[in-house]
Amino acid sequence: LKRPTTGSRFSTRRMVVVRAEGGAGIGINPDIRKTEDKVVDAVVVTELAKPLTAYCRCWRSGTFPLCDGSHVKHNKATGDNVGPLLLKKQ
Amino acid sequence: LKRPTTGSRFSTRRMVVVRAEGGAGIGINPDIRKTEDKVVDAVVVTELAKPLTAYCRCWRSGTFPLCDGSHVKHNKATGDNVGPLLLKKQ
Ligand code: FES
Ligand code: FES
Repeated sequence: LKRPTTGSRFSTRRMVVVRAEGGAGIGINPDIRKTEDKVVDAVVVTELAKPLTAYCRCWRSGTFPLCDGSHVKHNKATGDNVGPLLLKKQ
Repeated sequence: LKRPTTGSRFSTRRMVVVRAEGGAGIGINPDIRKTEDKVVDAVVVTELAKPLTAYCRCWRSGTFPLCDGSHVKHNKATGDNVGPLLLKKQ
């Protein structure tokens, strides 16, 4: 959308309906490793230290690829329902 | 945004700048298991069948929680850079 820089200030305009539902055309990762073409992480599961480790799927974690609980704030702010992937050693 | 239903059709309007970057207020999961408050999955890593298994973090996979490659289409459509978490047995 650009304001016309010349011409009449009095005009009719088409309506613009903004759909902000995370559908086509809207990215899901605002900030993480944006210099990378595709953010892929690998976990060697035999090297997991703890019985349970949570990995982020909301792209809001300050400790990505680990989950730091930021999905809670994201879900509250947006009405979304995302959560982590839990890796269990047994 | 609503078109005024009464009054002059000739008016100045404020500009609306639409930021569609997946920031605050926009969910990232359009469709997956929307009846659940929070979509959390657990993987018992000792039960992984293959040397390499990809888990979805784009919320677009038809085989969620597994990755089916749908992140490629999502990234192309939006300019995003998301990808899966790879679990490796060694
Ligand atoms: S912080 Fe992203 S899923 Fe928990
Ligand atoms: S299909 Fe979602 S990360 Fe690959």
